[in-house]
Amino acid sequence: MLEGLKEDVLKANLDLVKHGLVVFTWGNASGIDREKGLVVIKPSGVSYDDMKADDMVVLDLEGNKVEGNLKPSSDTPTHLVLYNNFPDIGGIVHTHSEWATSWAQAGRPIPAYGTTHADYFYGEIPCTRVLSKEEIDGSYEKATGEVIVDKFKNIDYKAVPGVLLSNHAPFTWGKDPDEAVHNAVVMEQVAKMAFRNEVLGNKTPVDSYMLDKHYFRKHGKNAYYGQK
Amino acid sequence: MLEGLKEDVLKANLDLVKHGLVVFTWGNASGIDREKGLVVIKPSGVSYDDMKADDMVVLDLEGNKVEGNLKPSSDTPTHLVLYNNFPDIGGIVHTHSEWATSWAQAGRPIPAYGTTHADYFYGEIPCTRVLSKEEIDGSYEKATGEVIVDKFKNIDYKAVPGVLLSNHAPFTWGKDPDEAVHNAVVMEQVAKMAFRNEVLGNKTPVDSYMLDKHYFRKHGKNAYYGQK
Amino acid sequence: MLEGLKEDVLKANLDLVKHGLVVFTWGNASGIDREKGLVVIKPSGVSYDDMKADDMVVLDLEGNKVEGNLKPSSDTPTHLVLYNNFPDIGGIVHTHSEWATSWAQAGRPIPAYGTTHADYFYGEIPCTRVLSKEEIDGSYEKATGEVIVDKFKNIDYKAVPGVLLSNHAPFTWGKDPDEAVHNAVVMEQVAKMAFRNEVLGNKTPVDSYMLDKHYFRKHGKNAYYGQK
Amino acid sequence: MLEGLKEDVLKANLDLVKHGLVVFTWGNASGIDREKGLVVIKPSGVSYDDMKADDMVVLDLEGNKVEGNLKPSSDTPTHLVLYNNFPDIGGIVHTHSEWATSWAQAGRPIPAYGTTHADYFYGEIPCTRVLSKEEIDGSYEKATGEVIVDKFKNIDYKAVPGVLLSNHAPFTWGKDPDEAVHNAVVMEQVAKMAFRNEVLGNKTPVDSYMLDKHYFRKHGKNAYYGQK
Repeated sequence: MLEGLKEDVLKANLDLVKHGLVVFTWGNASGIDREKGLVVIKPSGVSYDDMKADDMVVLDLEGNKVEGNLKPSSDTPTHLVLYNNFPDIGGIVHTHSEWATSWAQAGRPIPAYGTTHADYFYGEIPCTRVLSKEEIDGSYEKATGEVIVDKFKNIDYKAVPGVLLSNHAPFTWGKDPDEAVHNAVVMEQVAKMAFRNEVLGNKTPVDSYMLDKHYFRKHGKNAYYGQK
Repeated sequence: MLEGLKEDVLKANLDLVKHGLVVFTWGNASGIDREKGLVVIKPSGVSYDDMKADDMVVLDLEGNKVEGNLKPSSDTPTHLVLYNNFPDIGGIVHTHSEWATSWAQAGRPIPAYGTTHADYFYGEIPCTRVLSKEEIDGSYEKATGEVIVDKFKNIDYKAVPGVLLSNHAPFTWGKDPDEAVHNAVVMEQVAKMAFRNEVLGNKTPVDSYMLDKHYFRKHGKNAYYGQK
Repeated sequence: MLEGLKEDVLKANLDLVKHGLVVFTWGNASGIDREKGLVVIKPSGVSYDDMKADDMVVLDLEGNKVEGNLKPSSDTPTHLVLYNNFPDIGGIVHTHSEWATSWAQAGRPIPAYGTTHADYFYGEIPCTRVLSKEEIDGSYEKATGEVIVDKFKNIDYKAVPGVLLSNHAPFTWGKDPDEAVHNAVVMEQVAKMAFRNEVLGNKTPVDSYMLDKHYFRKHGKNAYYGQK
Repeated sequence: MLEGLKEDVLKANLDLVKHGLVVFTWGNASGIDREKGLVVIKPSGVSYDDMKADDMVVLDLEGNKVEGNLKPSSDTPTHLVLYNNFPDIGGIVHTHSEWATSWAQAGRPIPAYGTTHADYFYGEIPCTRVLSKEEIDGSYEKATGEVIVDKFKNIDYKAVPGVLLSNHAPFTWGKDPDEAVHNAVVMEQVAKMAFRNEVLGNKTPVDSYMLDKHYFRKHGKNAYYGQK
């Protein structure tokens, strides 16, 4: 079942390696079939070299396994919380990519320092609060999803397609697994340039009208970047 | 028409990828046929993997499309302002290359800290002022070109073949698209070393006679670098 | 003799190159057959391009050569001290990998700044004291091993599978040569992100319960990461 | 003539590219036949892709061309000063490699912060004084060699096989072109780690007995690193 989505999710996982965002098995991508309410996700701790589309695990939105011989990614509960709360996303990516993770470890949101950022993220990339001992000792991966959803109470998840988990690493999402990968690449590039920009002495984000200009040049009904 | 120039412009765009200056579609190169007064530029938002010479768009210097099935790069008005004001350039490159962009985001010109810089840029690489809300909300890409031209009122654009746009990223130019790419590579390398040089504690540019020596070793009638 | 282990040790040495941890001949990996009490190690100063499994040198735990035409790595006495004092390790790796070595040169342990670290190292990665003139002038490589063992008097070497040598570089270990390589890659990645995290302003390690959670998610009887 | 040396010099030049020390044509390697008193050097400004052994230029120690259709590297006078003053060297390399050049631009010697450094350079890598206007306006490339020789008045050029030129970039040398390349790679690696070590807070070089130990482990009659 869901053969096409499995291929897309496999490709998204392999693309993480191709873009240099993943070391060993430190990352996972998933996708959802909204009509069927089924999620396809990478198996846990399996080498990217050996992974086949058939190894992808199918689950319903409560986390019950529907198909697959392997255990799903240990981060599956986080993905499910996001799919359940962000109804318009179709793919999710989690990596420990080195630049975004450095910001996450520092517990700092990434300010919108330039147009590269503004082209994709409408404002700073937020960083969640640190989880409490109770949350960590309890259903840790579910609490991880909940702290993200809480962070986006007043942020439009469609205009800011990613987040940093304090002490941990980034999550990104998109309309499908491929766009989630795309946003993971962008976040990494933006994290790198924001770091260097700060070392060069600047800590002032771009003006709001520059943010508007670049974001809406690529998004929404007045976008004019790209073909048609 | 302009088949040779289209090939050159395509090659320049692909070379940006080869030199690691471009992620996804974040860059564009163009060239001009000065006799015919026609500009050839990359189409907007098209993947570098799929691009063919025939996809290049031909425009006149007022921006009217003369040939091509695709929309030209959204940065086309910036290129046109530069071609109209810098009569001796034959090619232009725009990228979001990570080191030069970090300086641009910091709003800082790159000082001439060494001979690598002096070999290509006769003095600091300037950084434009930030655009106003009115300029951004109006003809943004045209205003971007104008703020560059304004910056070069008292700078020789042939001796300093590139600029940083505040909050944004670099533009470089040259006698043809290939030289514009070359200067983009140099600027990136220079931006990287200038950053590290500052972290190591130096903020003093080279002496003017060192700048003269290296620049004129490679440029002008007394140049003696290279063959012939 | 020990053909299988020789192949494993050769592969471990070549993997160090593949993972970008080694320049020229600056690294070595070894493995041990605990039943026979024999160690297999890379020869000294031989190019990785030319190395064959048969070039690996076999020694007993006192350092007597049992088989091999070449001189063993000059760091062999350090490996032997570790095998003699850490009874549960089966492989050791030494490199001058650039990020871990930068911390070692700075004489600083790597704090546990995030979950990537906690997934593999249960607490900070320690840094040994500087060796005395007497130790350096005497049996230097043996003293190097002893200063590591001394550092682990109150640290569980199985939970913290690596160390930094002051002024020098890292050692890692594992249940076999392959796991020692794996831990060398992790340490390098962790060293890189810890560096950037500090430049971004954070010097506070993760909470102890976050450390517990991530370490025991992957290790011990309650581990639930990966298959089975 | 000197076909073997030409091949060695060509290979050294190409190895600079392979090791990532050279962008475009920013580097040159040479070698000397001491018996004949003839130097073989890369031609000026020729692309590495097109270079053949036959393009190498042969000169005597006064700089008279003995063989070759192309102009020698513009840095040739610097090479000649070094060959004339350092009688035991057989090869010289000059690059603008990015880490060593950052130190050179900052006008700072690279302190011996660790054993990787001590394995090859017996003490800090010196940085020359800045050239005067007169020296730059005169025989610039010759003066460049002379300022290096002057710097080594009280330093053993065989124990410290390289130098940084203030504002400019590194030179390294060795018993032949291949060893000069080797030392260029080492200097770049050492420059990188010294930079990071300083950002991590350390500015204290290794103790002199550590320097002795590592340098003489690899050099001189008591060396015991490598085979035989």
